[in-house]
Amino acid sequence: MLAEFRTTRRVQFAETDTAGVMHFSNYFRWMEEVEHAWFRSLGMSVIQPHALGTVSWPRITVSCEYLAPLRFEDEVELHFQLVSLSEKSMTHEVLFYLAGKRVARGRAKAVCCRTFEGGKFESIPIPPDIRAKMEGGGLAGA
Amino acid sequence: MLAEFRTTRRVQFAETDTAGVMHFSNYFRWMEEVEHAWFRSLGMSVIQPHALGTVSWPRITVSCEYLAPLRFEDEVELHFQLVSLSEKSMTHEVLFYLAGKRVARGRAKAVCCRTFEGGKFESIPIPPDIRAKMEGGGLAGA
Amino acid sequence: MLAEFRTTRRVQFAETDTAGVMHFSNYFRWMEEVEHAWFRSLGMSVIQPHALGTVSWPRITVSCEYLAPLRFEDEVELHFQLVSLSEKSMTHEVLFYLAGKRVARGRAKAVCCRTFEGGKFESIPIPPDIRAKMEGGGLAGA
Amino acid sequence: MLAEFRTTRRVQFAETDTAGVMHFSNYFRWMEEVEHAWFRSLGMSVIQPHALGTVSWPRITVSCEYLAPLRFEDEVELHFQLVSLSEKSMTHEVLFYLAGKRVARGRAKAVCCRTFEGGKFESIPIPPDIRAKMEGGGLAGA
Repeated sequence: MLAEFRTTRRVQFAETDTAGVMHFSNYFRWMEEVEHAWFRSLGMSVIQPHALGTVSWPRITVSCEYLAPLRFEDEVELHFQLVSLSEKSMTHEVLFYLAGKRVARGRAKAVCCRTFEGGKFESIPIPPDIRAKMEGGGLAGA
Repeated sequence: MLAEFRTTRRVQFAETDTAGVMHFSNYFRWMEEVEHAWFRSLGMSVIQPHALGTVSWPRITVSCEYLAPLRFEDEVELHFQLVSLSEKSMTHEVLFYLAGKRVARGRAKAVCCRTFEGGKFESIPIPPDIRAKMEGGGLAGA
Repeated sequence: MLAEFRTTRRVQFAETDTAGVMHFSNYFRWMEEVEHAWFRSLGMSVIQPHALGTVSWPRITVSCEYLAPLRFEDEVELHFQLVSLSEKSMTHEVLFYLAGKRVARGRAKAVCCRTFEGGKFESIPIPPDIRAKMEGGGLAGA
Repeated sequence: MLAEFRTTRRVQFAETDTAGVMHFSNYFRWMEEVEHAWFRSLGMSVIQPHALGTVSWPRITVSCEYLAPLRFEDEVELHFQLVSLSEKSMTHEVLFYLAGKRVARGRAKAVCCRTFEGGKFESIPIPPDIRAKMEGGGLAGA
């Protein structure tokens, strides 16, 4: 684990469904929210102006395991963990805890890209200054 | 492959993001939409009143690979495929095609449950009448 | 009423909430979907490349009245109606019908804009070629 | 103004759209989030177990005016204001401020209901104990 970041998030009403639980797709939005908060904690944005152009991180694979449901107004601890950095990509996990019990585990692989108008992307090696910040992350939280 | 179901879906504006592409979390909503349409094509609902109680299918793992982005107003072909049925669960895939080219592949494992008030679930063997319909699915579309 | 457009839309699972009904915010997404389908029926897009630049229609006020709830898998008729066109804006309504009974009524005022990078907008008089298509709409459906 | 409640909220990536701004429908989700946080600050929930049954507040009309766009990572101040309480309903407003400037104003009228399984509602006079908490709200924040 290269870096870790923790935050909490409450289940909002619009995030629940007729089954009375948080809809499974919303876990991915939470994963992204904590990842972006981690970037901000490093003094960056997931969409980062840079000498090379605008650097961003489209996902190439994501997954989530669900162990127990979340319900309206549950307050959930999110543990973001940077698992690996390759030349051009990062892999991270987000662990979801409710009252100390793990309820879900998400994982994403995102590739470092220069981004262009109209949703166009070109993968690039992670710029050294961005990599240094990501590797120096340590334990943080908000 | 036990059953297949095809439909099309257009990328809506609210499903896109600042990067100019469909947000990665929305692929999971589309996967669910085509799965539920498949249930309807079999004369059932994903939330099915039954002699055993209300039968539903909470997800236990989901994943998606993204091969190329989707943009506002793209019209996408969705191929739902039932990959396997175990005693208590099903695994299915959804392939996303744009202009004949595969742009994403999602996978989900969902467990057959009796559902109760307040988002409570109990896993059960897939009832034989429901299993028979799922296995007899063949190729269908809407 | 200057133009009308009709379509149908089924309530999806992710659009419902713990109360067992479609979340009130999603009616606005449906209003937008039918409006954009209307633009397509006129051979245009709500984000239209044009000699003047990219023309789009940010909302300045929206509202919705809810008369009866919608539930998972309800199939709803949507009636889009262009109510008025001023020099720079349009006002439209969307009526929601379930089994022939009106269940909601939405209204939006949107202003014609040239759009620029990074979410910047400048209001402009509706270009005459776009106005002609909007006024000539008549009754249509999909 | 009977009660006020303030909080802040950051624009998340999935809440933006291809136009580079927060999608107009998401303002309604934010309005609900701050309303529910206000209920919690009074020691209640918007879905409140009560001697009369489960008490909740379906919306009957909502509206929003948009004065200036919000963009990814903007941090926005939300001012919830309870505007009026009738026998069976409440009306509230949410003002959105970015860097001290008002960028949107939302309004909602919600009716006090007993709620039943399957998305069924019956309007009731606001129970006196709930009304007393709502009227005693004063200025609060989180």
